[in-house]
Amino acid sequence: MCDGHNHTHSHTTTRVPVVENILSANDRIAQRNHSLLHQKNVYGVNIMASPGAGKTSVLLKTLEALKGRLRIGVIEGDPAGSIDTDRALAAGMPAVQVNTGGECHLDAVMMEDALSQLPLDDLDLVVVENVGNLICPANFRLGTHLNLVIASIPEGDDKPYKYPGMYMGMQALIINKIDLLPYVPFDMEYFQQGVEVLNPGIATFPLSCQTGEGLDAWTDWLVEQAHAEIIPE
Amino acid sequence: MCDGHNHTHSHTTTRVPVVENILSANDRIAQRNHSLLHQKNVYGVNIMASPGAGKTSVLLKTLEALKGRLRIGVIEGDPAGSIDTDRALAAGMPAVQVNTGGECHLDAVMMEDALSQLPLDDLDLVVVENVGNLICPANFRLGTHLNLVIASIPEGDDKPYKYPGMYMGMQALIINKIDLLPYVPFDMEYFQQGVEVLNPGIATFPLSCQTGEGLDAWTDWLVEQAHAEIIPE
Repeated sequence: MCDGHNHTHSHTTTRVPVVENILSANDRIAQRNHSLLHQKNVYGVNIMASPGAGKTSVLLKTLEALKGRLRIGVIEGDPAGSIDTDRALAAGMPAVQVNTGGECHLDAVMMEDALSQLPLDDLDLVVVENVGNLICPANFRLGTHLNLVIASIPEGDDKPYKYPGMYMGMQALIINKIDLLPYVPFDMEYFQQGVEVLNPGIATFPLSCQTGEGLDAWTDWLVEQAHAEIIPE
Repeated sequence: MCDGHNHTHSHTTTRVPVVENILSANDRIAQRNHSLLHQKNVYGVNIMASPGAGKTSVLLKTLEALKGRLRIGVIEGDPAGSIDTDRALAAGMPAVQVNTGGECHLDAVMMEDALSQLPLDDLDLVVVENVGNLICPANFRLGTHLNLVIASIPEGDDKPYKYPGMYMGMQALIINKIDLLPYVPFDMEYFQQGVEVLNPGIATFPLSCQTGEGLDAWTDWLVEQAHAEIIPE
């Protein structure tokens, strides 16, 4: 399920048609989700990252910054538990937990179910926190406007070279935990060269949820994107 | 492919038999790999972790510490590239790269292919660095003696609660990057409580590849395990 279109390069070419059908079904439902968001005038963001890169921290800091500017709902995807949903609810956001039952990614059907449980008429922005994983989520579009990948400094500077699929087809990149730069080996130039090859000119936001550095640039850009797409000025 | 046995809890119960067959095939080949390792008197270790938790760093530090005690070969699993294999080769280890072509885990067939390319007669230990992923690799046994999960401090203390499958069925746990404890929020007691529920009494080694703290305890234990299993004193 996770390998998606990569199987077109596989030796077992007989499996290609099956995989393509699965992807088409997902894409069709993703398109339906996109239409619903558009109709409800809600901007959708799909956050993808390694486990522990800071998806929830970025989300909570973004909510704080957007208070009074945009009304946010949250969809939390996890293999198990509801830790992040509890955090989102505690922060005052409508939130829906999707437990994937061990699946390594959300898909458009799970997204559709989750959207049906959010008060879309009262929201401007829906943020999806995908399952922590640098491979599988990239192959399943959910119907959001923005696909965002979060890298983090302690993960190391080689991630674009090892997980190229996660860096292609994204519209924004956050480089989180820049406060840890003095304490870990991380060559920013090497990292960004890898990203540039895969996704030239991607909107990139280095920031720290601990110190707050860089958060304004990210949240201002996000508001701008949301307004440009769907929210009437 | 990644969801493995979790599908037994799924709504789409018609898929269960298929998934069970896939797992059985994998397990059969894993058993064959295990027999080969046993016959060649080689101890096998399967390292699993998030992307960037420090699998390669732990591996290289372990090699350094075991020089003259055990002869190590390496199997590197990555969706793309050969960065880690280049590092292992540069450190003087026989190493085989397995590119999964986007798959989120190694399986027993890939392991079998890789083993056939290593000089097993000249080795005491084969270390497999699985794809960086906290979900999929746990469902595919490779035939190693030891399944090791590496957690790292900056990933946060909630990982056992969110990714329980990765903490069950492992025989050892390394808690890496403890040198970063002063700089990030991480409640060691909360983390270890989560682990204890899933895998009571698992052998646990907090360490830092940057400072070297804790490395001796880990490598001494590993040598002991290897000797106890297969290497004649």
